[in-house]
Amino acid sequence: MAPEIMKDKFNDFLEPFEKFLQRECAVREPENLYAPVNYVLSLEGKRVRPLLSILTYYLFDDTVEKIYPQAASIEMFHNFTLVHDDIMDQAPLRRGQATVHQKYNLNHAILSGDAMLIMAYRLLTRGLGPETLGRTLQVFTDAALKICEGQQYDMDFERSTGVLQQDYLKMIELKTAVLLGASMAIGGIRAGCSVPMQENLWHCGVAMGLAFQIQDDLLDVFGQKTSTGKQLGGDIIQRKQTIVWLKALELSGPRQEAELRALYNQENIAPDDLVRQVTMIYQSLGVERHCQALKERYVLQGVELIDAIDVDDERKTYLVQLLKFLLNRTS
Amino acid sequence: MAPEIMKDKFNDFLEPFEKFLQRECAVREPENLYAPVNYVLSLEGKRVRPLLSILTYYLFDDTVEKIYPQAASIEMFHNFTLVHDDIMDQAPLRRGQATVHQKYNLNHAILSGDAMLIMAYRLLTRGLGPETLGRTLQVFTDAALKICEGQQYDMDFERSTGVLQQDYLKMIELKTAVLLGASMAIGGIRAGCSVPMQENLWHCGVAMGLAFQIQDDLLDVFGQKTSTGKQLGGDIIQRKQTIVWLKALELSGPRQEAELRALYNQENIAPDDLVRQVTMIYQSLGVERHCQALKERYVLQGVELIDAIDVDDERKTYLVQLLKFLLNRTS
Repeated sequence: MAPEIMKDKFNDFLEPFEKFLQRECAVREPENLYAPVNYVLSLEGKRVRPLLSILTYYLFDDTVEKIYPQAASIEMFHNFTLVHDDIMDQAPLRRGQATVHQKYNLNHAILSGDAMLIMAYRLLTRGLGPETLGRTLQVFTDAALKICEGQQYDMDFERSTGVLQQDYLKMIELKTAVLLGASMAIGGIRAGCSVPMQENLWHCGVAMGLAFQIQDDLLDVFGQKTSTGKQLGGDIIQRKQTIVWLKALELSGPRQEAELRALYNQENIAPDDLVRQVTMIYQSLGVERHCQALKERYVLQGVELIDAIDVDDERKTYLVQLLKFLLNRTS
Repeated sequence: MAPEIMKDKFNDFLEPFEKFLQRECAVREPENLYAPVNYVLSLEGKRVRPLLSILTYYLFDDTVEKIYPQAASIEMFHNFTLVHDDIMDQAPLRRGQATVHQKYNLNHAILSGDAMLIMAYRLLTRGLGPETLGRTLQVFTDAALKICEGQQYDMDFERSTGVLQQDYLKMIELKTAVLLGASMAIGGIRAGCSVPMQENLWHCGVAMGLAFQIQDDLLDVFGQKTSTGKQLGGDIIQRKQTIVWLKALELSGPRQEAELRALYNQENIAPDDLVRQVTMIYQSLGVERHCQALKERYVLQGVELIDAIDVDDERKTYLVQLLKFLLNRTS
């Protein structure tokens, strides 16, 4: 879903939060440290994670401004990971704009990223009393370290031929899903939820995060081209072993598996040809349907965990809407 | 002072701490993430900062093992800054061994550094009750962000010709001294000190940190060569505008200033010649004596702040010894 549609739907929640975030990342001295922070946060992100925190908090309480510092912390952390991941992936573009290491340079991207991680911790602790501070830190730090582990596995997998579906699912759980889990859990902690409910929210976010990443992998092959977004088939061109690729290997007989592997190993093939041929094999195997089924399993888990939250259904409307949008987007 | 002498003197404090630290950075999965963490922490560091925390804690209480997690956190944080700074400075060696980005690669150095910063936060909060958690986090995060700012100013100054002594002192306060301030303050917080005493400790650490860095700048020019340490005159070869350089500019007449600037601007001069000629001008100006006097001012500030601590002098012996060693080392 494009950011503008998100903004329409959740404007009442997003607009005041966005103002809060802008105040927080106003450029200070030294400018060379803080300008890149401001730049990356001003790129049109969907703000999925802070919105998840806010809408989770809203399940239990109306005064959503109380969760803004923690929601901003999670967005700051997420953007820190983007800045450093883009260096590691040598990515020139992010959300259609130059990445930080491209617009500024490597040193700025490293150091401003570091500052963002520290700023995330500063935001995280703001306004928390002794009853919630320790638990919030524990959930956040646990997620943060797992995300580094996930990024490492992701890089390790690039040089490995024996990646299994279960390895991949573990990797995306670490790299992507736990932050959605933390976003929901921290929303709940701030609202004073019990530990079992915090865990319920965490598992819900993780399940939705897994579904979200599978969706992302599917859209990369079978989605619609967007104006600013990624090229279709980008994962194939980069020879990524996504769930679509791994599911195809599982479903294919020896001949098709050999074809797929030969295509990924071919260095001189034109990118368009590669994408077209791999996608044709995917289609012949019905990979999309199988991946959709896997995604639906996680969505169902998430929905069950939301059903288990003992608040009025009316309170859940926005959260459910957000998840529906995220999991049914076509680009 | 060489690490082995530190170890002799403070062995009773350092040995159990070192064991604690080793347990904390045992290599886990994914190995590619955690092996560099273990590597950098196994390089023979002096452990100045954790020792400062431990000896400050010891002023007030015997059960020094209570401060190990926070002391380890500060050492972990310090080593994180070394890993990322070494990338930014393109440094091949650290403590006579290959830097992380040299031994592994750029991506490992970025990501393992990130993980170390998060691990530092995890250690920092361990064992703290609600009465100390918030304050400890505040002091640590405040210092951490200032250290990033200091590193940015340091890089900015490399491309600036108008650096003043006061700019430089502000920069080293941020980059180096505040972490020594935080080490002492956090030792005090853990021991249950009042806020005024925490501030006293912080200022003491900052003053000592400034003296420590001025000492470092002096040793780079006037020190003794060590077996594993830096080349003498390394700062001159890198055209660094240290306090020695800036003090020389202050003391020099127009002719000497022009000579100094001409030497720093000369690109094709042999490093040995450059060091010899700049050092000769330093000597003719009596720069060493003037920098020593500035250093002594900060030492005196620190000593007065230690005198103001209302505990038996016997309790202060180790802390005073550590500071004496640090501020009188010759290499």
